[in-house]
Amino acid sequence: MCVLGLGLIGGSIMRAAAGAGREVFGYNRSVEGARGARSDGFDASTDLNETLARAAVSDALIVLAVPMPALPNMLAHIGESAPDCPLTDVTSVKQAVLDEVVAAGLLPRFVGGHPMTGTAHSGWTAGHGGLFNRAPWVVSVDDHVDPHVWSMVTELALDCGAVVVPAKSDEHDAAAAAISHLPHLLAEALAITAAEVPLAFALAAGSFRDATRVAGTAPDLVRAMCEANTSQLTPATDRIIELLGRARESLAHNGSVADLVDEGHAARTRYESFPRSDIVTVVVGADGWRQQLAAAGRAGGVIRSALPTLDSQR
Amino acid sequence: MCVLGLGLIGGSIMRAAAGAGREVFGYNRSVEGARGARSDGFDASTDLNETLARAAVSDALIVLAVPMPALPNMLAHIGESAPDCPLTDVTSVKQAVLDEVVAAGLLPRFVGGHPMTGTAHSGWTAGHGGLFNRAPWVVSVDDHVDPHVWSMVTELALDCGAVVVPAKSDEHDAAAAAISHLPHLLAEALAITAAEVPLAFALAAGSFRDATRVAGTAPDLVRAMCEANTSQLTPATDRIIELLGRARESLAHNGSVADLVDEGHAARTRYESFPRSDIVTVVVGADGWRQQLAAAGRAGGVIRSALPTLDSQR
Repeated sequence: MCVLGLGLIGGSIMRAAAGAGREVFGYNRSVEGARGARSDGFDASTDLNETLARAAVSDALIVLAVPMPALPNMLAHIGESAPDCPLTDVTSVKQAVLDEVVAAGLLPRFVGGHPMTGTAHSGWTAGHGGLFNRAPWVVSVDDHVDPHVWSMVTELALDCGAVVVPAKSDEHDAAAAAISHLPHLLAEALAITAAEVPLAFALAAGSFRDATRVAGTAPDLVRAMCEANTSQLTPATDRIIELLGRARESLAHNGSVADLVDEGHAARTRYESFPRSDIVTVVVGADGWRQQLAAAGRAGGVIRSALPTLDSQR
Repeated sequence: MCVLGLGLIGGSIMRAAAGAGREVFGYNRSVEGARGARSDGFDASTDLNETLARAAVSDALIVLAVPMPALPNMLAHIGESAPDCPLTDVTSVKQAVLDEVVAAGLLPRFVGGHPMTGTAHSGWTAGHGGLFNRAPWVVSVDDHVDPHVWSMVTELALDCGAVVVPAKSDEHDAAAAAISHLPHLLAEALAITAAEVPLAFALAAGSFRDATRVAGTAPDLVRAMCEANTSQLTPATDRIIELLGRARESLAHNGSVADLVDEGHAARTRYESFPRSDIVTVVVGADGWRQQLAAAGRAGGVIRSALPTLDSQR
C-alpha cells in the first residue's frame, strides 16, 4: 500500500500498517518528512511520479493523507499515473473530498475514510503507530462504493487498531458539524464574550478553561475544518442560534431557562447512555449492504473485525 | 462564628474553620445533616432560634450557606434575632443576594462572598476541610461594605485556605455570566443540537463530551444559577448570539469564519497569559480602599494574607 503525505495521520498509518505486517511505501512533499521516515526505517520518497508509478504497477491501495488544499492537485496526478488503484483518504470533511474525487474522475475506486483521532502536534515526528488504537475510523458507505475497495479500507483501519464506523459522507459531515465544528465556533465566541467583561479572566477557572480549550487550536486548522463543511455547519449554527435566542427571550421575559435546560439535560443523558454494539452480520456486497451498514452505524454499531463478503460466502 | 446550612459549602466551611482553630457552631434544617455534623464531632443544631440567639450573644460572624430560595426567610429570622451580627454568604450570584439583604434591612453589617469551588455532590457528607484550598473566594467591596466586617470575612476565607479576590457584586455577576452561566446555556444548546443529528452521538467522543459536560448538571441547579443572574446573563447571551450570527453570515456568504476564529484565538491566548499578582499594599478602611481593591481584583490581583487595616496602622 501507498501513503501520500507522511504527517501526523499519514505517518502514523505508515507505522501502524507496517507494524501489522503490511508492505508500505510513501511519499512526502518535504524532504524533512521523507528523511525522517527513512531514518526510522521506512520506505519514503519525495518523488511523486515515481511513487505513483510504483503504486500503479503493484495495484496498491493509495491513502490520501495530504491537507485538504493539496487534494485537487494530488488527485490530478493520481488520475494521470494511477487511475485504477483503490483509493481512500483521511480528511475530516467527507463531502468536499467526494466532490474533488468526482471532478478528478476517480469515483469508481474511491472509498472515503476519517480516523477520528489526533494530537495538537503535526509532522512525521508527531506520529506513532498506536495513534488509532480503539479510535473510531469512519469508512464511507455512499451509494457508489465498491465492496472490494470498501473491505480493503476497512481492513486497513482494523489493522491500525481502530474500530470502524460505517457512514454516508453527508451524514458524517452533519455529525461532524454538530459534535466538532460547531463546538469550535462556540469556544471562539465564548472566549471573545468573556474577554470583553473586565473581571471575567480574573475569576475564570476550570470550567471556562475547558469550555474555551479548543479556541487554542491554530486558527488555520479551525478555519480549514469549518469552511470545508459550510453546507452542514451553516444549518447547525442556525439551529443553536435559534435555541439560544428562545432561551434568551424566556429568560428576559419570564425569568426562566427551564425549556433549554430540561431539554439539554435530557439530550446529554441520552448521549451518556447511547448504546454501542458490534456489527457482525452484514455481508459486504450483498443486496442493500451499504444501507444496512449506514443504519447500523447510525444506531451506534462499530466493526471490530472483518465482515463476511459475498465472495467468501460463495 | 456561626454557619447556617451545613451542606457541601457550609459543612466544608465548618470543618475548615474548626481546623484553623476557630470556635464554630451551626444550624441545619434537616435532622440528617445536623446529626452527621454532630457525629463528626461538630457543634450543630436544628433549632434556628436557639442558634441565632447564641450568635447574637457572642456577636458571631454569621455565614449564610443556605440555597438561594431559602435566603429571604433566613434573613427575616436574622433580622429579628441577630440583626447586629456581622454577616456574609456563599451564594454564586451576588446582586440578587444583596437585594434580599437590603430588603431585610441587614445591609450595614453584610459583606457578600462567593467561594468558587464545589463538587458534583451535595450535603454534609460531601464536604471536607480541604475544599477551599487555593480556590478563589470572592469577597465583595461594594460601596457600603464596612472595613471591619470585610476584614473578618477575608480572614475566614484565608483561614479556609482560599485566596481572596475582591470584587464589586455587579462585576462579579457579569463575570459569572460570561465564564459560568453562559457556558451552561451553550452546553445545553449544543447537546440538543447534536441529539437531532442521527449520526452525531455515534461519532461523538472526547471534545463533544467535554463541551457538553456541564449539561449533565442537575437542571434545578443550572436554573437557580442562571435565573438568579438574569440581568447579567441576558446581555451576555445577546452578545454571543450576535457573534455567532455574524460568523454564520460570513460562512454562508463568503465561506469564511476568519473574523470569529482569529478574534477568538486571540482572546483565548490573552486569557492564557492573564497576569496574576498578589495584593499586599491596600490599607483596608483608608480613603478609596474599596475602589483600589476592586481595580486590583479586576487586574488579576489576589489576597493571600491579611491586609493592613487603618486601625493597625494608627
